[in-house]
Amino acid sequence: MTPSEARLAQQFAFLNEIDKLKTILRASELTDNSRFENSAEHSWHICMYAMVLSDQAAPDVNINRVIKMLLLHDIVEIDAGDHPIHEAVDLAAVEAKEAAAATRIFGLLPDDQRDDFHTLWREFEAAQSPDAVFAKSVDRVAPVLQNLACGGGSWNKYNVTQDQLETRVGAKVARGAPAVWAYVKARVDEHFARRNSKAAQ
Amino acid sequence: MTPSEARLAQQFAFLNEIDKLKTILRASELTDNSRFENSAEHSWHICMYAMVLSDQAAPDVNINRVIKMLLLHDIVEIDAGDHPIHEAVDLAAVEAKEAAAATRIFGLLPDDQRDDFHTLWREFEAAQSPDAVFAKSVDRVAPVLQNLACGGGSWNKYNVTQDQLETRVGAKVARGAPAVWAYVKARVDEHFARRNSKAAQ
Repeated sequence: MTPSEARLAQQFAFLNEIDKLKTILRASELTDNSRFENSAEHSWHICMYAMVLSDQAAPDVNINRVIKMLLLHDIVEIDAGDHPIHEAVDLAAVEAKEAAAATRIFGLLPDDQRDDFHTLWREFEAAQSPDAVFAKSVDRVAPVLQNLACGGGSWNKYNVTQDQLETRVGAKVARGAPAVWAYVKARVDEHFARRNSKAAQ
Repeated sequence: MTPSEARLAQQFAFLNEIDKLKTILRASELTDNSRFENSAEHSWHICMYAMVLSDQAAPDVNINRVIKMLLLHDIVEIDAGDHPIHEAVDLAAVEAKEAAAATRIFGLLPDDQRDDFHTLWREFEAAQSPDAVFAKSVDRVAPVLQNLACGGGSWNKYNVTQDQLETRVGAKVARGAPAVWAYVKARVDEHFARRNSKAAQ
C-alpha cells in the first residue's frame, strides 16, 4: 500500500465509522411527530440553520468554520450517547466519555486531520471563541423550533418550565444571536401561555 | 412586524419546511443494514466526506462552497422524491419536478438568500464548475462505501453490473477525485469477484 493509499484507508475507516451517528437518537422529534430525530440529520439541519442565519452572527464569526464545527460536533455521541439538556446527568462522567470518544474516533483519521478535528471539537465544547458561541446558539435554537412545531415535544416529556428554558437554552442562544432569541422567545411565550391557559381550564 | 422580524419569519419558515428532508428515503442502507438512509443524514455524511477528502480536490476547488452546495443539494427531493441512479426514470420529468421544487422551497427564503441558494443548486446540477464536479464526486462515492459495507445493498436490488457501476458512478467520481476512485474501485472489484465466484459455485 502506498502512503497515499494508506491515507485514504484511514479516511474511509473514519467515514465508515461515523455512519453510526445516524443511529443515535435525540430527545427531539421530527416536526411531523413521526419519530425521534437522530444526531446525523440534526447535524445537517443545524448546518442549514448556520447558513441561513449567518446574517445574525457577530462580524468576527467565520461561518465556514462554524459549519465545519457543527458537522463534527456530535460525532462523540457514537460512543457517549446523546444527553438531552433537560435530563439530569453526571456532567463530569459525560465529559470524560466524550473526551475518550473524540480520541478514539478522530484517532481513525490521518494525524493532521485527527488534530484539526480534535481542536475544532474542543473549541466548540469550550464555547468561548466567537465561532463556537455562534455554533452553540444555532445548536440550541433548533430543538426549540422542533418542539414548537410539534406541540412541546421534549419540554412536555421533561416537564420543562419557561424559566428553565430561559436559563438552559435562551441565554445560550441570545449570547451568539440575540435577535434570533428575541424572535423565538415571543413564540415560546405564546406556546407556554396557551399551555398554562389549557391547564387552568 | 419589523423588517428584521419579517426576515427571520421567512428564514424559520424555510428551516421548518426542510425538516421534511429527514423523511425522504434513499436506496442505500445504513452500514449496519438496519434501515434505509434518509436524504438529510446522507447530506450530513457527504459533507463530512468533502471535509475529510478535501486534499483530493483539484487546487481550484473551494471546499467551503462545496460543503454549502452539498448541504442544500437534496432539498428539492422534499417535493420531487429521491431517484436512485440505478433506477430507470423519466429524466426530463424528474428535472421539471426538481426545478419546481427549488422555486417553491428556496422561495420561502428572503429574496437574496433565495437567489443565492438557487444559484448554488443550479451550479451543482450543471456539474461543470470545479466546485460542482468535486461535490458530485463526493455525492456519488458515498453510496459505494455504504453498499460495500453492507454486502452490495442497492447493487443487488437493482442487479447492477460492474460495467454499469463504472459508467454511472466510477466515471463521475474519477472526474473530481481520480485517486479516490482508483482506491475505491479496487474494493469494488474485490466485491464483484467474490460475488461472481459465489454465483459460479
